Amino acid sequence: MTWWCELGWLDGPVAGLRVTAVEGLITEVAPGVRQPGDEVLQGLVLPGLANAHSHAFHRALRGRTHADGGSFWTWRESMYRVAAVLDPDRYLRLARAAFAEMVLAGYTVVGEFHYLHHGPDGSRYDDPNAMGHALVQAASDAGVRLTLLDACYLQGGLDGRPLEGPQLRFGDGDVDAWSSRTADLEDGSLLRHGAAAHSVRAVARADLPTLAAHPTRHVHLSEQPAENADCLAVHGMTPTQLLDEAGFLGAGACVVHATHVTDDDLSRLATSSVCMCPTTERDLADGIGRVRAHRGQVCLGSDQHAVVDPFEEARGLEMDERLRSLQRGRFTPTELVTAATSAGYAALGWDGGSFRAGAVADLVAVRLDSPRTAGADPAQLVLAASAADVTDVVVGGRQVVRAGRHGLGDVGRELADVIAECWSHADR
Amino acid sequence: MTWWCELGWLDGPVAGLRVTAVEGLITEVAPGVRQPGDEVLQGLVLPGLANAHSHAFHRALRGRTHADGGSFWTWRESMYRVAAVLDPDRYLRLARAAFAEMVLAGYTVVGEFHYLHHGPDGSRYDDPNAMGHALVQAASDAGVRLTLLDACYLQGGLDGRPLEGPQLRFGDGDVDAWSSRTADLEDGSLLRHGAAAHSVRAVARADLPTLAAHPTRHVHLSEQPAENADCLAVHGMTPTQLLDEAGFLGAGACVVHATHVTDDDLSRLATSSVCMCPTTERDLADGIGRVRAHRGQVCLGSDQHAVVDPFEEARGLEMDERLRSLQRGRFTPTELVTAATSAGYAALGWDGGSFRAGAVADLVAVRLDSPRTAGADPAQLVLAASAADVTDVVVGGRQVVRAGRHGLGDVGRELADVIAECWSHADR
Repeated sequence: MTWWCELGWLDGPVAGLRVTAVEGLITEVAPGVRQPGDEVLQGLVLPGLANAHSHAFHRALRGRTHADGGSFWTWRESMYRVAAVLDPDRYLRLARAAFAEMVLAGYTVVGEFHYLHHGPDGSRYDDPNAMGHALVQAASDAGVRLTLLDACYLQGGLDGRPLEGPQLRFGDGDVDAWSSRTADLEDGSLLRHGAAAHSVRAVARADLPTLAAHPTRHVHLSEQPAENADCLAVHGMTPTQLLDEAGFLGAGACVVHATHVTDDDLSRLATSSVCMCPTTERDLADGIGRVRAHRGQVCLGSDQHAVVDPFEEARGLEMDERLRSLQRGRFTPTELVTAATSAGYAALGWDGGSFRAGAVADLVAVRLDSPRTAGADPAQLVLAASAADVTDVVVGGRQVVRAGRHGLGDVGRELADVIAECWSHADR
Repeated sequence: MTWWCELGWLDGPVAGLRVTAVEGLITEVAPGVRQPGDEVLQGLVLPGLANAHSHAFHRALRGRTHADGGSFWTWRESMYRVAAVLDPDRYLRLARAAFAEMVLAGYTVVGEFHYLHHGPDGSRYDDPNAMGHALVQAASDAGVRLTLLDACYLQGGLDGRPLEGPQLRFGDGDVDAWSSRTADLEDGSLLRHGAAAHSVRAVARADLPTLAAHPTRHVHLSEQPAENADCLAVHGMTPTQLLDEAGFLGAGACVVHATHVTDDDLSRLATSSVCMCPTTERDLADGIGRVRAHRGQVCLGSDQHAVVDPFEEARGLEMDERLRSLQRGRFTPTELVTAATSAGYAALGWDGGSFRAGAVADLVAVRLDSPRTAGADPAQLVLAASAADVTDVVVGGRQVVRAGRHGLGDVGRELADVIAECWSHADR
C-alpha cells in the first residue's frame, strides 16, 4: 500500500510525499507524483502522534471535578470513586471509547499506565491479568497501537503504609508477585508491554531495582511538592535521587511530569525521557515544570484526559514555557512535532513517529482549510490545529479514521453511555 | 420567536428552557414544555458569548510567527507588516472572515479594538472612517454584534516620540482630531461605539482625560514589564496610576490584560472591568496575571486570535490561575460562564449575555454528545467543550449558524484566500 500525501512531514512539510508500507512497516518514503492505486491523503500528513502517558479510565472524570475547588489530592478521591466501580467488562468499554476518542484526535499509539489489576477488594480474577487483557482488547477494537505499561503499586505512601480501601486492587502483594503476573503478558503486531513503578510513593526503595531491570520503564515523578517533601523526610533524598540510586534512570526510562525538580535532579535525568502532560498539569494545578532545562528527549501524554488533543498538548508545552520564561519560541514547531511523534514512540518502545523505512506505518492527516487552520504556515500547523481538524488516521497500515469518522461509529454515544453507568454506580 | 432549549443556562443548566424574543430583545424566559412553532435548540444553550477584546486583522498571524523565537516586541514587527498591506477592501474581507470564524466558535458579540484608521502613510481616506466602516460592514456580513472601540493612538512611546513607519496610519494628529472623526460614527441595532486609549504608550498624559469622558472605554494595560518600566521612568508612576489620575478608571472602563500590576494598582482597578486574553497572553509570553486578585468584573477576549475558542479562553483563565496558585477551582464553572457572557457584554456596553427579559436575544447551542463533551456534567461544560462543539448561533434573534454551518459558506476558504493575499503583499 502506498499513501500519496498532499504534504508529508519530514522535519517540515514536503509536497507530494509518497509513503509505502508492507505488513504495517514503512518500506519506502520519497517525494513523487501520485501513481494509480495510491491512497490519497489531503492536508498535512504527520507521522503517528504518540500519547505517551494515559490512564484511560480517568476519561470518566472530564467535566466532573470542578465544582468544589480542592487540590490534586481531592481530585484523586474522585478518581478512586470511579476506579472502585470498574470490572473487566466496564473497564473494557470505557477504555475502548476513550481510545477511540484518542484515535479520532490523531493519537496512533498510547502508553497505558495501568494499575487497576485486581478486584475492588484486592481479590484476584480467574485470569490474574483480566484487567490488562481488557485494555488490550479495547485498544484492538479502537484500532490504536498500545504499549501496556503494567504498573507496580505496592504501598500507600513513602512511609511504607499498606494499601487500603480503593487502593487494594492496585496491589500484587510484593514485587515478585508483580513480576510473575506480568511475565505472562504477550506482545503482538500492535502491542508491546512495558513496566512501570507507579511512583516512589507506591514502590519501596528495595523494590525499585527489580523495576529498573526492564527495557521500557515509566514512573510518575515529582508531580506534586508533597511527594518531594515526603521522600526527603523518609529517605533524605529527592525522588529522582532515589530512582537514580536504584538504577532506574537512563536509556529506556521515562519519567512522567518531573514538575518539581532540582538542578541536581536535572543532571541525573539527562539520559532519561521526560513525558510532559500539559493539559493535566494545568488541570491538576501541578505547576509549570522546568521543561527546557531537561536534556533528555521530551514526549507528551494526555494523562487524565481532561483534554484529548495532541495539538493542544504540544501547544501547551510551548505556551506554559512562554508563561514561565516570558520568551516566545522556546521550542521550534519542528521540536514540538518531534515531541508529539518520534519521541513518544521511542519512550513506548516502538520505532515510529517518523516517515522512514523500518518505522511503523502510522499516518495522521490534518486539514489545512478549517476555520482554525486556514492561513497558517503548514510548517507551524502544530500551533494552530486542533483534534477536530484530524480527518484520516492510519495505524499499522490500516485506515481507522476516514473523513473524521471512526470505524466504531458514534464514539460520543459510547463515551456518554459507559460514563453515565460508572457514575450511577459510584454515586450509590 | 421562541426557542425551546433542551438545556438552557440560568447560572446553571435548566431543562426545557423557553426563551422568547421580539425584535431582537428577550421578552420572556421560563422553563416549560415545547410548544408548536418553537424553534428547537439541542444540547446546552448558553446566552451569547462575548469576545471583549479583538484585533480582527491579527488573525492573519496565526501559525506564522513561531519560527524564530523572539518576544512580544518581535511579534509586533510581524503584526506591523500585515497592518501595512491593509486597505479598506482587504481589511473588510479579512475582518469578515475572522468575525465569521468567531461566530462559528460561539462568539455573538465582539469588541473590536480598532487603530488602523488611515492610509499606510497616514494620509486620510475620502471617508475618514473608511477603515472603521469596513469593520462595521464585516460584522454585519458575518452576523455578529459589534462594539467598535475606536482607539486613539497618537505617539510612538511614553517619551512622546512621534509615530513612524507602519504606525503612521494609526494617528489622528491630536486628540481633538480623534474626537471629531469619531463623533461621526453612528450606532445600530447590532452596533455600538466605544472609545479606547490604545495604551499609556500611545496617548499622552494630557490627552487621557478626553478619553476618560467616554461611557465605554478600553485600554491595553501593563501587558509587558517594559511598559511599566517606561512609565515609571517618564512619569514616576505606574500605568494604572496614570490612568487613575486622568479619571479613566471606574464604571465603564475596561482594562485589557493588566498582567503586571502592583497591590496599589489592584486597589485603583477595583471598580473597572478587566479583560483577560489567556490564549494571547500565553502566546505572546506576557506571563500569568493576578486575576483572582482583581475585584472588578473579569471578562474575556481572543485578542490576536492565535486561538478563537471561547471555551479555551475561559478554561485558560482557570488553568493559568491553577498553574500559578497550585490550587484547583479558582473560579467556579458558573463564574467562568459569567466571564464569557454577561461580564463581556457589560464591558462592551450591552445588556446581554444572560437569559432574562430586556437582554439581547443571543443564544449559543453546544453539543453534549461529541467525543469532547460526552460524559461531562452540563454544569461544568465550559471546562470540556471546544469551539468545534458549537452547533447553532442566534444573534439578535436571527440564526447565523445552523448545524455548524455559517450562512456565509466556507469560512476556511475565505480566511485562506485573504490571508494568502495579505502575505503575498507583505513579503514583497
